[in-house]
Amino acid sequence: MDEDRTLWQELARQFRVDSIRCAAAAKSGHPTSGMSAADLMAVLVAKYLRYDFDRPERPENDRLVFSKGHASTLLYAIFRAVGAISDEELLTYRRFDSMLEGHPTPRIPWVDVATGSLGQGLPIGVGMALAAKKLDRLHSRVWVLCGDSETAEGSVWEAFEHAAHYELDNLVAIIDVNRLGQRGPTMTGWNLDVYAARARAFGWNAIEIDGHDLAAIDEAYAQALQTTGRPTVIVARTIKGKGVKAVEDKEGWHGKALDDPDAAIAELGGRSDVVVAVRKPEPAELHRFPSGPLELPRYELGTEVATRKAYGEAAAALGAARGDVVALDGEVGNSTFAEIFAQAHPDRYFEMYIAEQQLVAAAVGLQARGYRPLASTFAAFQSRAYDFVRMAAISQATMLLSGSHAGVSIGEDGPSQMALEDLAMFRAVNGSTVVHPCDGNQTASLLKALADVEGISYIRTLRPSTPVIYSPDEEFEIGGSRTLRGSDEDQVTIVACGITVHEAVKASDALAEEGIRARVLDCYSIKPIDVPALAIAARDTGRIVTVEDHWPEGGLGEAVLSGLAETEERPQVVKLAVREMPRSGKPDELLAASGIDAAAIATAARRLVGAPVASA
Amino acid sequence: MDEDRTLWQELARQFRVDSIRCAAAAKSGHPTSGMSAADLMAVLVAKYLRYDFDRPERPENDRLVFSKGHASTLLYAIFRAVGAISDEELLTYRRFDSMLEGHPTPRIPWVDVATGSLGQGLPIGVGMALAAKKLDRLHSRVWVLCGDSETAEGSVWEAFEHAAHYELDNLVAIIDVNRLGQRGPTMTGWNLDVYAARARAFGWNAIEIDGHDLAAIDEAYAQALQTTGRPTVIVARTIKGKGVKAVEDKEGWHGKALDDPDAAIAELGGRSDVVVAVRKPEPAELHRFPSGPLELPRYELGTEVATRKAYGEAAAALGAARGDVVALDGEVGNSTFAEIFAQAHPDRYFEMYIAEQQLVAAAVGLQARGYRPLASTFAAFQSRAYDFVRMAAISQATMLLSGSHAGVSIGEDGPSQMALEDLAMFRAVNGSTVVHPCDGNQTASLLKALADVEGISYIRTLRPSTPVIYSPDEEFEIGGSRTLRGSDEDQVTIVACGITVHEAVKASDALAEEGIRARVLDCYSIKPIDVPALAIAARDTGRIVTVEDHWPEGGLGEAVLSGLAETEERPQVVKLAVREMPRSGKPDELLAASGIDAAAIATAARRLVGAPVASA
Repeated sequence: MDEDRTLWQELARQFRVDSIRCAAAAKSGHPTSGMSAADLMAVLVAKYLRYDFDRPERPENDRLVFSKGHASTLLYAIFRAVGAISDEELLTYRRFDSMLEGHPTPRIPWVDVATGSLGQGLPIGVGMALAAKKLDRLHSRVWVLCGDSETAEGSVWEAFEHAAHYELDNLVAIIDVNRLGQRGPTMTGWNLDVYAARARAFGWNAIEIDGHDLAAIDEAYAQALQTTGRPTVIVARTIKGKGVKAVEDKEGWHGKALDDPDAAIAELGGRSDVVVAVRKPEPAELHRFPSGPLELPRYELGTEVATRKAYGEAAAALGAARGDVVALDGEVGNSTFAEIFAQAHPDRYFEMYIAEQQLVAAAVGLQARGYRPLASTFAAFQSRAYDFVRMAAISQATMLLSGSHAGVSIGEDGPSQMALEDLAMFRAVNGSTVVHPCDGNQTASLLKALADVEGISYIRTLRPSTPVIYSPDEEFEIGGSRTLRGSDEDQVTIVACGITVHEAVKASDALAEEGIRARVLDCYSIKPIDVPALAIAARDTGRIVTVEDHWPEGGLGEAVLSGLAETEERPQVVKLAVREMPRSGKPDELLAASGIDAAAIATAARRLVGAPVASA
Repeated sequence: MDEDRTLWQELARQFRVDSIRCAAAAKSGHPTSGMSAADLMAVLVAKYLRYDFDRPERPENDRLVFSKGHASTLLYAIFRAVGAISDEELLTYRRFDSMLEGHPTPRIPWVDVATGSLGQGLPIGVGMALAAKKLDRLHSRVWVLCGDSETAEGSVWEAFEHAAHYELDNLVAIIDVNRLGQRGPTMTGWNLDVYAARARAFGWNAIEIDGHDLAAIDEAYAQALQTTGRPTVIVARTIKGKGVKAVEDKEGWHGKALDDPDAAIAELGGRSDVVVAVRKPEPAELHRFPSGPLELPRYELGTEVATRKAYGEAAAALGAARGDVVALDGEVGNSTFAEIFAQAHPDRYFEMYIAEQQLVAAAVGLQARGYRPLASTFAAFQSRAYDFVRMAAISQATMLLSGSHAGVSIGEDGPSQMALEDLAMFRAVNGSTVVHPCDGNQTASLLKALADVEGISYIRTLRPSTPVIYSPDEEFEIGGSRTLRGSDEDQVTIVACGITVHEAVKASDALAEEGIRARVLDCYSIKPIDVPALAIAARDTGRIVTVEDHWPEGGLGEAVLSGLAETEERPQVVKLAVREMPRSGKPDELLAASGIDAAAIATAARRLVGAPVASA
């Protein structure tokens, strides 16, 4: 015991020194935020963490998430102490050629997810703990170091509620209550009782300790391990900058290297090379769900089905084919049809209630443990989790997000339920794939294709039923398109996706009766977009009308313009999109009022054909 | 008293009947969600609400927010009972020609903000209550009707924390605990104690009642009025669909008109025309903050200043000029420089801590009471509140959001802190204005201009200091641009904004030495963009390079392409943007690695000039 205490003390001291050294080398960073949690982490890594640093991919490993990602100096100090990185590498902190970024990212082998946008580590930890307990069925534990400031983020309370609801006794949150945020005191200060009362009201086991008392820390972790049926939070009173008088508990020292690092290091007792052996987890058998043949739903040509329904049926089929596919929904599974997956694969379905941040965060956590999550809600409400999607891209996450009820075609529920910015939002995610099918078979085929795509995928589906226009045997590739009307004599091309495909076809048929030949291109793949097909259409017709049930910015029209800019073609392009705030009404009324129905498309095409066309 | 009781009973009965009637007329809607809260609302409007329906703009009015916006049938039933709308109008529910939309919007004179995305009404109510108590200094009260399902949204807990922190005893939340969400039971069911314990842990006065017991409801409101120093939540056990056996407390009846409305209405006792006189508020004097002359900060040409610093100084100057200007920040005021406003106008500054949803929601609430909020945080973290911004547009809100630390130019903190999607996000907001200044004087001038712009404005600022290149006397208009390098002989145009303006100037100067004439256009106004200037540049040079510190999607480049598509010009356009996930490093290293520095611009321009140019 005394031996342990000495090691923990030495380790914590070294963590503080190394935090200061990193930040001094980089001339930036958040050393004081690492120093407050040094004791908490020393006991954790020396005694409780089970992790194989040589094989971070082992499913039996615990997970350690620094939700307070700005305390990266402490995390990297841990990596040095466990022998994962050298002292030399530690001092590359924040350099362009270093993996030790200002905030942790999965460029580091022992970091599963990026943090640095506060309040995300705990909800992501909920996803990891769900994976370990409900899917892997291993004793792997998830430890999340939280800042006290970040508990102001509502997403933290979504995590508290969901972790308790799912009885995640393999999840331990450690709140480093150093009472100081970036610009001053937090709302709650050192009032540990408040944190504990909130946690208990949300169903957690809460333990209040002095976060610099090594014995108390040890006891708290031990208690956490013994607690069953609910998660544990350790609420630890700490001192920001602990150990260096010049900065201890002082405002104005957030996110700064110390003025005199040498003096601070001397005050702490100098640099050291303490090494700690982290215990590896016991080998254990990972539960696996069965895989089987893929039998996608098939819709007969000429019938009608909503693409959201096809999504649900195809998702269930994917789940039958692949044991690694899991699904989540934000309490609208009877609208998104995620309920079909839930009924088929109840063990791999997670109800996330009306908490879209937790929905996406859980998906991030699940994919970090090797699952393929499909996370659905209304497309409009995916906007609630945009910061989580942004961060998921930094986390190099692979997952599929599904947004139903896109656009004005939903009708009477009105603008609050109509996604009109989702294409812009998801296109502007690094490495994303964005598709918007118009019929049931296309939806199923695209979902199959997306199951093998790396990165963040987004599928946009529709509320109303739409005609089945593609054969169930047709395969749709990411980056492709389909020409639904067309000939060598086309005078104009209509580029559409989703609901507007059907309007475009109607417009083309109406124009044909007037002797105007309008090609119809179904650009179901919006990112990547089918540049070769656009180039051919531009060369053949010189005139393009794009039409989307979306605001004019960042959606199909701009994707087309960007795609064409990469080619030699310079067609005339007219963008039809929703330009005024829509209201309640019938879908047809709203498509017409928004100027994106067949009549509006035909008018735009007529105008273009009548006008002089710039030479291509 | 008995008289009151009879009225309340009759009123509640009528609310239920009218909920069913509306939904029956529309063949859609959420009547059962209105029926659960009918008693709660009957007592409120008959006895406690102070509201002048003839003059909804009166500052002394209470505010009633239906955070559970899907219970709109109940709200509209109230409007009929108070005489604001006729029975005939009530039955226009959800029609295209009706203001009575599926979810409430400010198309209705007595609705201040749109709801329908759950978990937003309460944080917006916090903003309204802040306005009433801290700014208006009136006894106006804010009543927010919440669903139980929506308490799963973290934003609700942000509101709980902030309302208690600001001691908003003029805020009353009413949670309609009908235990059923859209697809089934909530996590918490009818366990009122859990809701009350959570609310108390967050510092609220909590009252548990049977939400169908009129005396208990009356007593709860009376208690709420007497409570000082903290907000009150009334946690009311209710029955979804209360009063109609076919749907009472039954799953599968969310968001549906009843199967047999006539039988249901008969079961409730038939339609009626009860009228209730809502008490008007006593006239009272609105506090006003002083206004004065506008003295914007002035930066000397040739010096350096960060645009975020100029934002803070200009915001403080605006505050001195206009008593209606208020500011809020998400605990990063020492980075966004909102702290300068806070120091100058402490009474009109609200610290919202690390809770960006509450930050934006409070701004929406404040503007709904006539203030001009400036809400700042890192541009990256504005993404946390995207759903609130989306809804704010439906609320017809006028407010300014400021995002600092945009793009890779922030340097060492790494990608989690770099906004690279914010232009896409804010462009895709209906009626928005988006600007991105490159120097201090431009920032100040644009802030002045934005103070008079309706709708949602977004100003993007930079972390590093940049050279002052514009005179403090220059005025910048929304929709304008500046030509920084140019002549009649220009061969190519470089379109830039923010940090890339300075890179573009360097590139142009370097190209000039090689004999290549490159025009530089500072498109500081991204939405609306200066289409005439782009058209002239396209006509003059035929070749355009756009360069932005942003992903390639939805930002400056696509704004330029969309703008040009409206003209007769067909230049060649090359888009430079950040295409790979950035990392920590020095700003210059990152601009270079992202291919958006002067060297990359010059290379792109050289290539364009050397290549054959499509005829314009």
